[in-house]
Amino acid sequence: MNRPVWIRHASQLVTLAGGSSSPVVGERMNELAIIEDGSVWLENGRIASVGTDAELEEIYRKRLEEADIIDATGRLVTPGLIDPHTHLVHAGTRENEFNMRLNGATYMEIMNNGGGIHATTAATQKASHEQLYQESKKRLDLFLLHGVTTVEAKSGYGLTLEDEIKQLEVAKQLDEEHPVDLVSTFMGAHAVPKDYRENPDAFVDVVIQEMIPEVARRKLAVFNDVFCERGVFTPEQSRRILEAGVEHGLLPKIHADEIEPYEGAELAAEIGAVSADHLLRASDTGIERMAEAGVIAVLLPGTAFFLMAESANGRKMIDAKVAVAISTDCNPGSSPTVSMPLIMNLGCLKMGMTPAEVLTAATINAAHAIKRAHEIGSIEAGKLADITIFDVPDFMTLQYRYGVNHVHTVIKKGAVVVAEGTLV
Amino acid sequence: MNRPVWIRHASQLVTLAGGSSSPVVGERMNELAIIEDGSVWLENGRIASVGTDAELEEIYRKRLEEADIIDATGRLVTPGLIDPHTHLVHAGTRENEFNMRLNGATYMEIMNNGGGIHATTAATQKASHEQLYQESKKRLDLFLLHGVTTVEAKSGYGLTLEDEIKQLEVAKQLDEEHPVDLVSTFMGAHAVPKDYRENPDAFVDVVIQEMIPEVARRKLAVFNDVFCERGVFTPEQSRRILEAGVEHGLLPKIHADEIEPYEGAELAAEIGAVSADHLLRASDTGIERMAEAGVIAVLLPGTAFFLMAESANGRKMIDAKVAVAISTDCNPGSSPTVSMPLIMNLGCLKMGMTPAEVLTAATINAAHAIKRAHEIGSIEAGKLADITIFDVPDFMTLQYRYGVNHVHTVIKKGAVVVAEGTLV
Ligand SMILES: [Zn+2]
Ligand SMILES: [Zn+2]
Repeated sequence: MNRPVWIRHASQLVTLAGGSSSPVVGERMNELAIIEDGSVWLENGRIASVGTDAELEEIYRKRLEEADIIDATGRLVTPGLIDPHTHLVHAGTRENEFNMRLNGATYMEIMNNGGGIHATTAATQKASHEQLYQESKKRLDLFLLHGVTTVEAKSGYGLTLEDEIKQLEVAKQLDEEHPVDLVSTFMGAHAVPKDYRENPDAFVDVVIQEMIPEVARRKLAVFNDVFCERGVFTPEQSRRILEAGVEHGLLPKIHADEIEPYEGAELAAEIGAVSADHLLRASDTGIERMAEAGVIAVLLPGTAFFLMAESANGRKMIDAKVAVAISTDCNPGSSPTVSMPLIMNLGCLKMGMTPAEVLTAATINAAHAIKRAHEIGSIEAGKLADITIFDVPDFMTLQYRYGVNHVHTVIKKGAVVVAEGTLV
Repeated sequence: MNRPVWIRHASQLVTLAGGSSSPVVGERMNELAIIEDGSVWLENGRIASVGTDAELEEIYRKRLEEADIIDATGRLVTPGLIDPHTHLVHAGTRENEFNMRLNGATYMEIMNNGGGIHATTAATQKASHEQLYQESKKRLDLFLLHGVTTVEAKSGYGLTLEDEIKQLEVAKQLDEEHPVDLVSTFMGAHAVPKDYRENPDAFVDVVIQEMIPEVARRKLAVFNDVFCERGVFTPEQSRRILEAGVEHGLLPKIHADEIEPYEGAELAAEIGAVSADHLLRASDTGIERMAEAGVIAVLLPGTAFFLMAESANGRKMIDAKVAVAISTDCNPGSSPTVSMPLIMNLGCLKMGMTPAEVLTAATINAAHAIKRAHEIGSIEAGKLADITIFDVPDFMTLQYRYGVNHVHTVIKKGAVVVAEGTLV
């Protein structure tokens, strides 16, 4: 049994308490439930007590000697960050394609040079379980160093039953062996494989009839996701795929309205998706319907940044009472980053969100987007002891001193896994 | 006497050789003079020899045992990064002002709440030398952790002779005591002090008659800079100030065309400034003249990012044969960052520069912008042994995996000062 951990004297303890029962919307996203000179007692992997330092000293006065103390004087303490949308498990990198793009190559030149999503699909199909595991583990270490304690991870570079399951099994193994928790999403409908280009509906049938049942049977995913975009999967195909998932107990998510308006947000609301993600081109009607239906908007400002596009309008969505979460979208084509700290900066500077709102979006609302808000996303007694400590005095400075990873300490299920910015 | 250091087996050794005699322009900015399986021998604080690993092994075959070896297998080795435009030495922070702005406060509300440059001026005037030193030293440590081995540092938050000299003396002490080298710029004409608001020319006289001679006499600066912008200093006032500097041996630099077109680039060309900085609104004529006159454009994409504005058009300037350097502009109001890695990302993603061009801009051209290209900015025999090693295999990946500080090792004048991403 580990000793209790007592985090003391946080300059600001951002608890985000009170938002666990439903996603946080509207002006409440700008409230963080802050305790000054804050203190948290962690025991048996869970948060035992939260309050001011004086309060906890009183509560635990007979057990003070038992605990390992972490002095957070001058530092910001928050829930462990949560990334609710990643394509973490994949093989290979595409820096050459990025370099070609910045050197003025056209889309077709890049494709002819072996670029694009099919490059990653081919590499992922070819990779062994072990190779995929090792490449993904390196990224996961970096997520942890950037303060993230839980990530969602999608399949979707396999595109055959066997290779989709390989990706999900790697995610499962990482979840078991790595300090960071993984929540898996099946995304067989990430792209239409080359062989089905003339008949995408036949691939939709494969996804629905072969892949979803098998993934569900093996309990390899919690969510089912689809890339609903002109030239990829139509809203009608997307609906079929998501409804098939629901029948097998997989909760729906959707990549919606990224490149052009395609009524993806509307579809998400109609079928009651847990989240609709991207939403750069979502219509006003779609945003309204998402607010009504309680669909979470998972916004990915890093992807817009990397693709040199306008970001989604996070400000507008929050004002429209949509619950907003943010994410890296970590993937080798359109967002090869692992940095939630930068994503929060981009949330402020590219989506007009406030420093408080981006923190809500990266913690409790991100937890809701992966249906884990009962366990993580806030610092409240009973939740998992997942905590990140930043070497800045407050939540404003975390965004103000932009472009820097301020993570100092990360605690996962009560154990210190990053100390002084280094993996333990 | 320190032992020699031998950096071996760099996946890519980016030397940037051949650009020391004059700033690198046009297509040459996209060439990096790369050696694969590269090797560098450092001795007596300088670079002794550069080549492939096989070549150096042959050259030093009788002395291999003498050296401390750094294995750079799989890593990128570059010249130490250089930041040619910072306001490093200042007191206080303004995160509250940033937070107010994102929460919709107007400029006047922020000013009435004690925000703006005058807040930093007041804090800097009030600060003791020791306090200024400590606050600035913390930032300098972070610069080093982000791969920077030389920074330019401006005064300009003192605005009285005494306080300007205090800032420059802090920079001098940091240069002497900290591993990072500082190159100082006097910038008394950074803002018009409140007392002179009705008669800014009287303040220009003070800068010219009192400050510049004294700063020059004490040898506290190499450069003289002025904020040429409508409502701050006119082109005519700027010219007088810069010419006065030249008379006292201070080389001219200019903050030009940041907020609106003001013919700052033209002025820079006319008086032969070493660099013109910002240039978001520089005219086509101004850019042309800068190219003809050999004025370096120091571009500050972080400032545009933080102020939520369009960046300067780096792509266009490079295509127009202007030598481009990039910088953090580190300052508490408009760019509170210390991360040249992020600035390089922004150079690619917000200014359309290539991964090779941003590296040229952050090394050899940055060295030219502070007149140190004979000593730093490339990995060539005879130069100072200032070297940064990144935990990525090549210069493309350094930008591709955006938003992350990939610095692994930093060597300053032959000594390892950052190892495994941590200060030694
Ligand atoms: Zn995605
Ligand atoms: Zn400046």
